[in-house]
Amino acid sequence: MDKLDNVIVHVGGNNLREAKELAQHAEQIGANAISSLPTVFLRPKNVQALVEYLRELSEAAPTLPLYYYHIPSMSGVNLCMEELLDAIGDSIPTFRGMKYTAADLHDFGRCITHSNGKYDMLYGNDESILAALSFGGKGFVGSTYNYSGKMCNRVIDAFNKRDLETARSEMFKVQAFVSVLKKYGGSVDANKCIMVLSGLDVGPPRLPLIEFTKENRENLQKDLEAVGFFGLI
Amino acid sequence: MDKLDNVIVHVGGNNLREAKELAQHAEQIGANAISSLPTVFLRPKNVQALVEYLRELSEAAPTLPLYYYHIPSMSGVNLCMEELLDAIGDSIPTFRGMKYTAADLHDFGRCITHSNGKYDMLYGNDESILAALSFGGKGFVGSTYNYSGKMCNRVIDAFNKRDLETARSEMFKVQAFVSVLKKYGGSVDANKCIMVLSGLDVGPPRLPLIEFTKENRENLQKDLEAVGFFGLI
Amino acid sequence: MDKLDNVIVHVGGNNLREAKELAQHAEQIGANAISSLPTVFLRPKNVQALVEYLRELSEAAPTLPLYYYHIPSMSGVNLCMEELLDAIGDSIPTFRGMKYTAADLHDFGRCITHSNGKYDMLYGNDESILAALSFGGKGFVGSTYNYSGKMCNRVIDAFNKRDLETARSEMFKVQAFVSVLKKYGGSVDANKCIMVLSGLDVGPPRLPLIEFTKENRENLQKDLEAVGFFGLI
Amino acid sequence: MDKLDNVIVHVGGNNLREAKELAQHAEQIGANAISSLPTVFLRPKNVQALVEYLRELSEAAPTLPLYYYHIPSMSGVNLCMEELLDAIGDSIPTFRGMKYTAADLHDFGRCITHSNGKYDMLYGNDESILAALSFGGKGFVGSTYNYSGKMCNRVIDAFNKRDLETARSEMFKVQAFVSVLKKYGGSVDANKCIMVLSGLDVGPPRLPLIEFTKENRENLQKDLEAVGFFGLI
Repeated sequence: MDKLDNVIVHVGGNNLREAKELAQHAEQIGANAISSLPTVFLRPKNVQALVEYLRELSEAAPTLPLYYYHIPSMSGVNLCMEELLDAIGDSIPTFRGMKYTAADLHDFGRCITHSNGKYDMLYGNDESILAALSFGGKGFVGSTYNYSGKMCNRVIDAFNKRDLETARSEMFKVQAFVSVLKKYGGSVDANKCIMVLSGLDVGPPRLPLIEFTKENRENLQKDLEAVGFFGLI
Repeated sequence: MDKLDNVIVHVGGNNLREAKELAQHAEQIGANAISSLPTVFLRPKNVQALVEYLRELSEAAPTLPLYYYHIPSMSGVNLCMEELLDAIGDSIPTFRGMKYTAADLHDFGRCITHSNGKYDMLYGNDESILAALSFGGKGFVGSTYNYSGKMCNRVIDAFNKRDLETARSEMFKVQAFVSVLKKYGGSVDANKCIMVLSGLDVGPPRLPLIEFTKENRENLQKDLEAVGFFGLI
Repeated sequence: MDKLDNVIVHVGGNNLREAKELAQHAEQIGANAISSLPTVFLRPKNVQALVEYLRELSEAAPTLPLYYYHIPSMSGVNLCMEELLDAIGDSIPTFRGMKYTAADLHDFGRCITHSNGKYDMLYGNDESILAALSFGGKGFVGSTYNYSGKMCNRVIDAFNKRDLETARSEMFKVQAFVSVLKKYGGSVDANKCIMVLSGLDVGPPRLPLIEFTKENRENLQKDLEAVGFFGLI
Repeated sequence: MDKLDNVIVHVGGNNLREAKELAQHAEQIGANAISSLPTVFLRPKNVQALVEYLRELSEAAPTLPLYYYHIPSMSGVNLCMEELLDAIGDSIPTFRGMKYTAADLHDFGRCITHSNGKYDMLYGNDESILAALSFGGKGFVGSTYNYSGKMCNRVIDAFNKRDLETARSEMFKVQAFVSVLKKYGGSVDANKCIMVLSGLDVGPPRLPLIEFTKENRENLQKDLEAVGFFGLI
């Protein structure tokens, strides 16, 4: 792991026992932190259940910061994160924040107000990081950063210089390529194909996702070229 | 209407014929513009159908600017607004923009890019106007402005001065009161009760909404006091 | 109205006042009953609000039986109908039942149990009337009956004779044509096109629905022929 | 396993590799069949992807019949099962049918028509098995059968004797207890509590589900007594 500054290991899945095993392993190999989805088949029904889940998980890796992964569109768990922070209170010493992948800027803003800097509120909608920045967001985690990191850093840099016009125009360039990504379904299969086209070949997606056909890949490439993508990354 | 600078009459509902009658009436009485929801029972299935609806409606009031009211959470019509702008093209001369009441800042940003200043993109999520401002939004239409106008103008003014810290802290004050509004259901019944408490008594809501009980109104007042609401409006 | 045995006038829409006017008109012209959707933009939030709406509406036509139109997929109002019957109790003397257009046979069965014959529970999912029959349903209201009446009566007749094999095979013939209807979107535009093809030309749909093109109509006709539709109606 | 006639091992989860390992293990220990959910985080986007998933899984246990577990309310995978059967065709020799846990009797009926007896269409909505029976369903898999088996067998027996009145009245007794189950959330935590109350103590649910408190359990018991549950099982 010597090439990476900060390794957060995701340990969640469908059951707490495996998540705890993965958390222990992450601690043993020297990860910097762990992160977890909620269980996604039998889901926590309320924030109290989610707190119990996170508390038990945290005890499996008591030296590692713990992040919750909030992505209701994928996990089906659409609880109010402000209520989660309220319910956690001081009961999970290693709890450090969350990846917030949702468009609800009211809840996101309330979490920032609530935590008052205590927690990392890492935003996960890559195509609207400028909104999160304006709400005080300071960290971002997203799958497109495998290739869009420079584009998004330009948004952040301009914002930090209070050059909002540049920030906006750079954000809109990101949005133009995200429109292409969405045209091709917006999921990991399209994402991995863009990684290949960007020179980062991490292999095909696993079933039930299916590798893009040559024709689809070529069309995707043309659409990316049409929005100037390859000159921006 | 002499006390109001700009009157936009909403004419939409469940059928085009009535919408056209209301549009003609709005033109006759000197309204500044008309606005329309899509029909909300038999809904437009795609942007082409929505364009046909808007085109026919526009012809009923050919001198008035026309705005589309995009509020998928209420109307059930969740079409892509960038595609709507594409499909309208130059075919509706009076089309002037939309009220955009949704959290999809990707679509909102794409509409701003697409229209390049040609259309008014009026944002409708009062609790996150700072996000719309950062994306270039310049106009806002919302039900809470009946009482929160000064609070929200402070967000806008600070943003326009590039004082982002103040803009954010004023935005978070708005969010604190919106949390109270949401606690009481977030709909027109709660809104009207806050209007009464704010000194703007426009009467009770109509069925199927039910006027707040005295007890509910007093609890709402206490919750609003707890977030300093009455000192902010 | 002399050609029709039983005329139920639908009066619902987006506001109670117009619904009451239509209810009064229906009473004056000698309709047999009235029916109403909930309001579909600002919707009743709970059964209590819906009861208030129905109670006021019933008073506008105090001599006419009143039916509620439960169709959550279209109206967006997905309340529990068993709870509605509980909440109505004896408070609306003219309340006579509902058109139940939803697949929730638990709620439908509970309403039949609850009303114990007092109310008409009219089922509205034409493609699964055999299920409603098995649960004790005795009446059916649906848009496809403009042409599928004979097909569906064969299901009912066979069921009433306890000839379940025939009932099932006739039901499956209905399902085969409904699959075609769904292939073409399943809405009023396709329905009206099938009416035309069936010899019942009631004119094109209104915007925002769009009349089928000649090509679409011919394809629809071929698909209907392929499932033997025209020999069954 | 000598006390059970027919053991179907569920092997699905969040990734195909583990599902294959579990399938191989099931084959080795002499299970009668395997069953699988789709992956529930990165989900199959269309029936083709699901066929690929099932085909690979089937090859891990080539001697065991394979069932697909269709439960869109939990898995988030709401594909048309008639289309799945079409897409499978003859390509998965061990495919034997599915557990169909959804209220869509059109799709369910179409699958029965389509498979013409080739596949087992096992229905999973315990509270409406009478509907599935009327559509030709012959098998049922459900969590409440841990205690409601006798009640549901009375429905089936009466139906098979063409005593539809008894079938219906027995079905409505099941629905009465399912209303209680739903009042307590309708999930595995309530189900396990009813198991305990029924004399089948299989232990508490696992996190993120939480064991019922003593008070909740006693209330649940009273509500079950009120519908005569304990005299029926």
